[in-house]
Amino acid sequence: MLELFYGRRTCALASHIVLEAAGADYTATALDFGAGQQRSAAFLALNPKGRVPALRTERGVLTETPAILLYLAQRFAPAQLAPLDDPFELAQLQAFNSYLCSTVHVAHAHKLRGARWADDEAAQQSMRAKVAQNMTECFTLIERELLRGPWVMGETFSIADPYLFTLTTWLPGDGVPIETFPAVADHHRRMLERPEVQRVWALHAG
Amino acid sequence: MLELFYGRRTCALASHIVLEAAGADYTATALDFGAGQQRSAAFLALNPKGRVPALRTERGVLTETPAILLYLAQRFAPAQLAPLDDPFELAQLQAFNSYLCSTVHVAHAHKLRGARWADDEAAQQSMRAKVAQNMTECFTLIERELLRGPWVMGETFSIADPYLFTLTTWLPGDGVPIETFPAVADHHRRMLERPEVQRVWALHAG
Repeated sequence: MLELFYGRRTCALASHIVLEAAGADYTATALDFGAGQQRSAAFLALNPKGRVPALRTERGVLTETPAILLYLAQRFAPAQLAPLDDPFELAQLQAFNSYLCSTVHVAHAHKLRGARWADDEAAQQSMRAKVAQNMTECFTLIERELLRGPWVMGETFSIADPYLFTLTTWLPGDGVPIETFPAVADHHRRMLERPEVQRVWALHAG
Repeated sequence: MLELFYGRRTCALASHIVLEAAGADYTATALDFGAGQQRSAAFLALNPKGRVPALRTERGVLTETPAILLYLAQRFAPAQLAPLDDPFELAQLQAFNSYLCSTVHVAHAHKLRGARWADDEAAQQSMRAKVAQNMTECFTLIERELLRGPWVMGETFSIADPYLFTLTTWLPGDGVPIETFPAVADHHRRMLERPEVQRVWALHAG
């Protein structure tokens, strides 16, 4: 049995959707980020990073979205959520997910998590002021170069799609209308039509 | 034939070492970051991100260190550079590499690349002032929780080791003595003893 620890509307949404898409037998435990539950002693014992997602498995705890997503694609191989038999295509998929975690998520994090990188409020304000511009640049690259359409990897739905969906949901709060990017907006609408996305999104958005 | 595009002492060092460790038939092309060559029209046509590493293959260009490293481990499977037959162990390895790219590299980047996240010089100065503290926190987690020893994944050398080596080389410049972290320092020394590391490091450090 797998147990996912998540915060609502955090990047853990991607792992949550993939668990559902894979038909996994799992439980999902929400952490109260408002109360700082991700920094509680109990959770730090499970994940010393104090972050989500964290996926408890029979063999130990996994962290980091790109790693968890690939693990789920391999564990639930019949769901065909990644091109496991084609190293080049898999690398393209992993490059997409890596870009989301190391560039796009980081650009977004400068809105509410600026204190990670600078102590003074004026600097954090300067970071917040640039978030919309940076997210626009990231999604322009996604729109023009990375999103093959209709799904990230082309005709086949994969673990990259719930991850892109997750970061797309952050755009309005970052001051960037999703409709700025027609292909991304189309991807977002089609994701919201999928039953497994609706089930999980109801828990995160509710 | 593979062609790696790199900048000296950038994170592309990890891919460079893995190519060498795998015994790959490849060429390596250095970009002059001082002259902004990674932003030239010729390179942007190859990698619209304007970043390194970029690996040109017969099927197209790959980017993002964790994706390139896994690709090389799969392409050169006899070199046994990743636990390809064990999804849980592979996920632990990918989680380590993902942490390096999305958290540790990002912490470091706030020293010289602060303009990515804030326009004004005062804010960039505030970011620089926190880099040593953040790198110390990251490497404390690596030292205590992530680096199994003697190699990242334990007894077996893997693609995670050149990546950790690469980021460790940045510590002195970030104002953090490597010896602060005994296990990391030991890992660093043993990496420098490896012939393939010496060959590549000479190109980057020279």
